[in-house]
Amino acid sequence: MNTTVNHNLAKLLISCPEKPGIISTVTNFLLEHKANIVHFDQHTTDPQAGKFFMRIEFDLEDFDSSFEKLEQDLHVLAQNYALDWTLSSKKQMKRMAIFVSKADHALMELIWRWKSKEIEVEIPMVISNHADLKEVVEGYGIPYYHIPMIKEKKEDAEQKALELLEGKVDFIVLARYMQILSPNFISKFPNQIINIHHSFLPAFVGANPYVRAFNRGVKLIGATAHYVTNDLDEGPIIEQDVQRINHRYTAEDLKIAGRHVERRVLAEAVSWHVEDKVIVHGNKTIVFA
Amino acid sequence: MNTTVNHNLAKLLISCPEKPGIISTVTNFLLEHKANIVHFDQHTTDPQAGKFFMRIEFDLEDFDSSFEKLEQDLHVLAQNYALDWTLSSKKQMKRMAIFVSKADHALMELIWRWKSKEIEVEIPMVISNHADLKEVVEGYGIPYYHIPMIKEKKEDAEQKALELLEGKVDFIVLARYMQILSPNFISKFPNQIINIHHSFLPAFVGANPYVRAFNRGVKLIGATAHYVTNDLDEGPIIEQDVQRINHRYTAEDLKIAGRHVERRVLAEAVSWHVEDKVIVHGNKTIVFA
Amino acid sequence: MNTTVNHNLAKLLISCPEKPGIISTVTNFLLEHKANIVHFDQHTTDPQAGKFFMRIEFDLEDFDSSFEKLEQDLHVLAQNYALDWTLSSKKQMKRMAIFVSKADHALMELIWRWKSKEIEVEIPMVISNHADLKEVVEGYGIPYYHIPMIKEKKEDAEQKALELLEGKVDFIVLARYMQILSPNFISKFPNQIINIHHSFLPAFVGANPYVRAFNRGVKLIGATAHYVTNDLDEGPIIEQDVQRINHRYTAEDLKIAGRHVERRVLAEAVSWHVEDKVIVHGNKTIVFA
Amino acid sequence: MNTTVNHNLAKLLISCPEKPGIISTVTNFLLEHKANIVHFDQHTTDPQAGKFFMRIEFDLEDFDSSFEKLEQDLHVLAQNYALDWTLSSKKQMKRMAIFVSKADHALMELIWRWKSKEIEVEIPMVISNHADLKEVVEGYGIPYYHIPMIKEKKEDAEQKALELLEGKVDFIVLARYMQILSPNFISKFPNQIINIHHSFLPAFVGANPYVRAFNRGVKLIGATAHYVTNDLDEGPIIEQDVQRINHRYTAEDLKIAGRHVERRVLAEAVSWHVEDKVIVHGNKTIVFA
Repeated sequence: MNTTVNHNLAKLLISCPEKPGIISTVTNFLLEHKANIVHFDQHTTDPQAGKFFMRIEFDLEDFDSSFEKLEQDLHVLAQNYALDWTLSSKKQMKRMAIFVSKADHALMELIWRWKSKEIEVEIPMVISNHADLKEVVEGYGIPYYHIPMIKEKKEDAEQKALELLEGKVDFIVLARYMQILSPNFISKFPNQIINIHHSFLPAFVGANPYVRAFNRGVKLIGATAHYVTNDLDEGPIIEQDVQRINHRYTAEDLKIAGRHVERRVLAEAVSWHVEDKVIVHGNKTIVFA
Repeated sequence: MNTTVNHNLAKLLISCPEKPGIISTVTNFLLEHKANIVHFDQHTTDPQAGKFFMRIEFDLEDFDSSFEKLEQDLHVLAQNYALDWTLSSKKQMKRMAIFVSKADHALMELIWRWKSKEIEVEIPMVISNHADLKEVVEGYGIPYYHIPMIKEKKEDAEQKALELLEGKVDFIVLARYMQILSPNFISKFPNQIINIHHSFLPAFVGANPYVRAFNRGVKLIGATAHYVTNDLDEGPIIEQDVQRINHRYTAEDLKIAGRHVERRVLAEAVSWHVEDKVIVHGNKTIVFA
Repeated sequence: MNTTVNHNLAKLLISCPEKPGIISTVTNFLLEHKANIVHFDQHTTDPQAGKFFMRIEFDLEDFDSSFEKLEQDLHVLAQNYALDWTLSSKKQMKRMAIFVSKADHALMELIWRWKSKEIEVEIPMVISNHADLKEVVEGYGIPYYHIPMIKEKKEDAEQKALELLEGKVDFIVLARYMQILSPNFISKFPNQIINIHHSFLPAFVGANPYVRAFNRGVKLIGATAHYVTNDLDEGPIIEQDVQRINHRYTAEDLKIAGRHVERRVLAEAVSWHVEDKVIVHGNKTIVFA
Repeated sequence: MNTTVNHNLAKLLISCPEKPGIISTVTNFLLEHKANIVHFDQHTTDPQAGKFFMRIEFDLEDFDSSFEKLEQDLHVLAQNYALDWTLSSKKQMKRMAIFVSKADHALMELIWRWKSKEIEVEIPMVISNHADLKEVVEGYGIPYYHIPMIKEKKEDAEQKALELLEGKVDFIVLARYMQILSPNFISKFPNQIINIHHSFLPAFVGANPYVRAFNRGVKLIGATAHYVTNDLDEGPIIEQDVQRINHRYTAEDLKIAGRHVERRVLAEAVSWHVEDKVIVHGNKTIVFA
């Protein structure tokens, strides 16, 4: 959801081992810092001995003068209570790079939601192994870098991309990029690369899911947005959805129908990531949507 | 959701005007009473000057000895902070009366979910203006009362029902009861009567929604579970869902297809009511599902 | 569905009173004309005395030389059997005008599906009462006409639009046009104007459906694509869909969430209209999708 | 869909290699036999050289005297045109055996739809490897046979079942039977055994799909109804559906939520099978629903 933007809004994500009183501790801390809780979400894998997750949106009076202090004090609190945490504010907009190949549907959906301010993000660059979408992307005032991908020189291509990204980008969206990233590349953006896979994973892991869906005769096709890890198509799932099909659909029809699911699923996942609504826990995600 | 039952579990619902520190106040209170928060949900209509809603599930060590004390202290807290609240525990199972007419689908769905322990509730009685379902209901060991409904003697019939319900029932489900309850009757169970309407309200308010849906040529039919108020079909909506149909469906087909939506929607709504997940706010509901 | 385009493909729609042998008659006719049936759909409102509807896609060998003859003979057949019919071919692409106001979401979805050839149509013009979207539309090489709408001079504005459309356009899509067309205007395009209404009609007929949906506390919001008639929001429904929402959504959030349903529903309806899959029957539609 | 039952209704299913004029040939044949087509569905895998499928519902005047003649003449027609066909009539109700283990949800859904005449079928018997559901099944007047399944004596158990089924049953529904049938058993009922698998196949093929879905962190769980073949979980899919879940669901919650999808998906598949709406084509199905 996207209500009117409140630039005094901050978001705090916390993960820690379950312990009594953790909610009190954190909400007391926020109260002392004159933070007004706007939204609070919580999850525990097991109230006895599990892992605890919390997401708090809060308003700060006098944001500019008090945010820094709150952040400093949070360091201390986190040490005392063994909290993993991230704190972000609406003032610091996330910076998203989009990687594409030739297909434009996922890219255009992201750009449309960005232009209409549904997804509030900066897009410092689009990177592609093809030149096809250069004109349309630049038409939106977004820099487009064409880095050809030659199989034997994949490392060089990735290196070039990393140099472009360095210090300019917080996370990456693979909007039907169709290339497998190396472990080295992935390690630079842990849980910060979102991919859209064109099946309801774990069905049809790997290549050509639509052809395989057609051959298997499924009655639903799907799409899955997930964080990229070194295990291909095995990363934490952020969002999935499906679309009903029938015997009349050819493999090509599945592909066309699937594009709409992909657009929707990827855009949702990106929007949640941007709003700090996703916490990765092992190979799963907690999504406070 | 229905995890393994924990009989030391209690549920606290709170509504109050938005004020700073309310989460701290309540969670501190629970911590002092050695309550371990298992699940926490919160909503505010407006962080500045709106209404605040909170639902907390918590475990109590030494439940039997400490629950009463907690309840007493809560009275004091509530007065100090102007909180509306309800506190319930898994030990006190809610008691549900079901009102039916001749159709059995909504009734059977509730009974099946009750038998399979998906909905943890007691069913002290089924009341009907017809005798048709007596045998099947009694087959499940549930008392069945047939109170014929004569138009001129509606008041008497309602009086008889009220006598049967008196002290034995916490809430009522109209599982396709097809009778309009009087304001007097409704006033005895405020926000404790759930009805299933066979359309996606507010479309097709009133009688014969399926015939009217057929005549209008809609492409989706729906069902709506709502709390009963004196304004017919205007009470707070708890849950809605729809089913896709097409030009091949006759009005009779719509009715048949609709039954499945009705079953699902009503069962969901009842299950949330039983789990204290629904808070009525004016003519709407907050559902912490 | 959109398989590879076959330009020898023709589509025949027939409506007539139900009579025995009508399928034989028409399929024999096609066989005699060396037409190969690729897809056949049929519907009858009542096999005894109802109305019969049929849609046939067929291939023609030697399309260019034989299509005209088939069309001529069809005139004769239709007279003998009292058939209402339309015949179209992939060679004659439909021409669609889009009317917009300021919102771009429905427009952009149509343009994207047109560019990606999901909807095979010509777009000779976009007409708007505002200048806002001129640049983006012209960027796609589509002429954009800004016809300001002054309340007292609505007739003049419509007249101007009619002159632009004259002979250039087969059907019109109101992609959130926000103006009510006069009976005179509508009469020029009977069952050829498609509107997208932002609710699951017949709920929230009229203005501000999202605000009213918010106030009523519904759990689903929807959108409805329908043909425009003189009865506002009462024309034959082509397609509807819904999206689940919850108590967290503000009226503004509903509007944003609803945009995606509107895009999807309108694009489906337009695509079916273009593929001659929709037959209007009284105030309803038969959709052979 | 289930309109009022018309006992003069017959259903003809035809598969054959695509050839010009096949629709004319068959509809002419029916016209000559004074059959009035009520509903007609058709599919071709490729209009040039594919396989052609057709389903026709028709009324017969003077059903009793003319059905037999029509059936005889169909034999001749089929030989001349190399048609595979089945002909059935509403007068010959299909006979369905249900195999269960201990879980009752899929069984009860089938029984409820049978009692309410949504699925028009005879149920000559329920067979189970456990005695648990004996009482409830017999309460509906349906014979219940308990055939214990001892791993080493599986063949004997199957033999006993086959003897019970012999001549009494047209098709079998595995309503969460949890046993793998032998190739010998399956060969007696080719494409006449329907199973419900508790995942959106081909994801989570094999045992414990809910636990594996939980471990994989999927956001949708599903169920799949398919015909049983010798390749476990690989038979032709009839119907699939999914349900949205989230991080709050335990593996046990998934199982509970999944039951409702299973009920719905299995009941749909069975109803289509009963209505002769499913044609198996290789490892897929054509469903004229």
